[in-house]
Amino acid sequence: MSLLLLGSWSALERDQWLSLLQPALPGECWILDVPLNAADAAEVEAAIVANPAPGSLGNLPRLRLIQSVWAGVDKLLADPGLPADVPVARMVDPAMNEAMVHTALWAVLSLHRRFFELAAQQAQAIWRQPEQLRAADWQVLVLGLGELGGRVARSLAAQGYAVSAWSTRPAVVEGVQCFHTDASLVQALARADTVVNLLPLTVATQGFFDAARLAQMKHGASLVNLARGAHVVEADLLQALEAGHLRHAVLDVFAQEPLPPQHPFWQHPQITVLPHCAAQTDPRSALAVVVGNLRALREGRPLQHLVQRQRGY
Amino acid sequence: MSLLLLGSWSALERDQWLSLLQPALPGECWILDVPLNAADAAEVEAAIVANPAPGSLGNLPRLRLIQSVWAGVDKLLADPGLPADVPVARMVDPAMNEAMVHTALWAVLSLHRRFFELAAQQAQAIWRQPEQLRAADWQVLVLGLGELGGRVARSLAAQGYAVSAWSTRPAVVEGVQCFHTDASLVQALARADTVVNLLPLTVATQGFFDAARLAQMKHGASLVNLARGAHVVEADLLQALEAGHLRHAVLDVFAQEPLPPQHPFWQHPQITVLPHCAAQTDPRSALAVVVGNLRALREGRPLQHLVQRQRGY
Repeated sequence: MSLLLLGSWSALERDQWLSLLQPALPGECWILDVPLNAADAAEVEAAIVANPAPGSLGNLPRLRLIQSVWAGVDKLLADPGLPADVPVARMVDPAMNEAMVHTALWAVLSLHRRFFELAAQQAQAIWRQPEQLRAADWQVLVLGLGELGGRVARSLAAQGYAVSAWSTRPAVVEGVQCFHTDASLVQALARADTVVNLLPLTVATQGFFDAARLAQMKHGASLVNLARGAHVVEADLLQALEAGHLRHAVLDVFAQEPLPPQHPFWQHPQITVLPHCAAQTDPRSALAVVVGNLRALREGRPLQHLVQRQRGY
Repeated sequence: MSLLLLGSWSALERDQWLSLLQPALPGECWILDVPLNAADAAEVEAAIVANPAPGSLGNLPRLRLIQSVWAGVDKLLADPGLPADVPVARMVDPAMNEAMVHTALWAVLSLHRRFFELAAQQAQAIWRQPEQLRAADWQVLVLGLGELGGRVARSLAAQGYAVSAWSTRPAVVEGVQCFHTDASLVQALARADTVVNLLPLTVATQGFFDAARLAQMKHGASLVNLARGAHVVEADLLQALEAGHLRHAVLDVFAQEPLPPQHPFWQHPQITVLPHCAAQTDPRSALAVVVGNLRALREGRPLQHLVQRQRGY
């Protein structure tokens, strides 16, 4: 079977994947990204991709699987050259799950226990103890209950937080109050001290946090965006922070990445900027997913973690 | 029974305690801190204390219980005027336990995931992703396995960290490698990426983190001190940070509190200063411990959470 490794990764990242994949799948023929000659293109049966250039998955007549090494497939699905009838699988990686849970936990702890304010106090040598609130009195709303959102919601509940979660489809998560209607979203936003965004990016969730939605959030609440930059209308968020409606934002993702040096988020005292590092795929643990799907493909068994392309994630 | 409320608390704090204690223990006679006339002093059977002035617990002939509302009793036991034969009980408060677990978790997550460095990067508008390490590859050493240390060790292990713990007496904590010899301490210090101090402050642990001990820590490791300022020789810690041996210190407690405005810790880029807010007693949940011991005293049942005064905690 000819396998194509294709993406925006560095040579170092690609070589790390190759050094893990080759011994795990002996006898396969590996084709590295570019240039792809016509003979190779005719043989490719599976493409392992990390944000490939638009159009690069067309003209592969024998392609039967597009395996993303990323959890979010919004850019991939937005490629008009993506072959319509080839299954797309996302990444579900234990290391990424762990990292996302930890980043969310750190962000919620930082907001609940006022650690960002304490850092600002330190800069001014101010000794002042914040009020200590019980986690049970701190309402967290998790948006999105996919692999990552579900784990984050459960972990926050395990730390004692009052966790609710909203997703577009009905869901059940132990210890978490789950909602899926638009009306319940408005009510949940009005109650939450911290909102953690882990929605998939689709046509429906683009610009989700606009002025109207931000206005529905509780006065003094904070936003943690660990999903996609395009979920947030950045000017509207700035406005909500500067008007004093929102207290703080922890942002891992941005409309433009890397965040441009002159962007107002960098120096904003109410914004914590993370360089899209909330959770990364670790090839050492992600390998099992890729290898599992490639073996399933070869042996005619069902593929795992398939994307439902019509719903957009 | 005459009960004395005595301490360094504010009128607000004292009134909060009184407003909770009075309905919980109807019929008792409450005496507020100072001045104490001879008739009152002759009647006091129990003192509920928060860091009382030295000598203030002498000359109470009927005193049968000193109930601290703090977990650390080092200052109380250091009072030469403390009556030798009166039982001393410490505070074990669910809200304090939760807060300490959360502070420790936040500090370890911040160090493991490089969130302090990312904050420094943000100030310079630098977009650079740190290496993402698995929690299992991050060694945390917890010092002290009392009520708080045990809970912190278990919680860190539950987040996937490689947790070991050292205490002066043998202990068993599920999921945590426990040591108690001096030789094992040296080995554990040499391995740990983060050391979390939750030792009691005694004659033996005063100045625990001096130059010699800090030199035993792994190169590039970090210290989280959530116990007492006197555990750390501050000049030696500064030296270890500035020499590049240690990476960072998160300090909640100091030799002098509030930390003086000119103290070098405030502006040090490798030091996170917290204003002794890691975990505070919450009268709403701590009430049950105080009420339980006062009822036990009245009814002749065994007292809970008694301090062993000869060992110093």
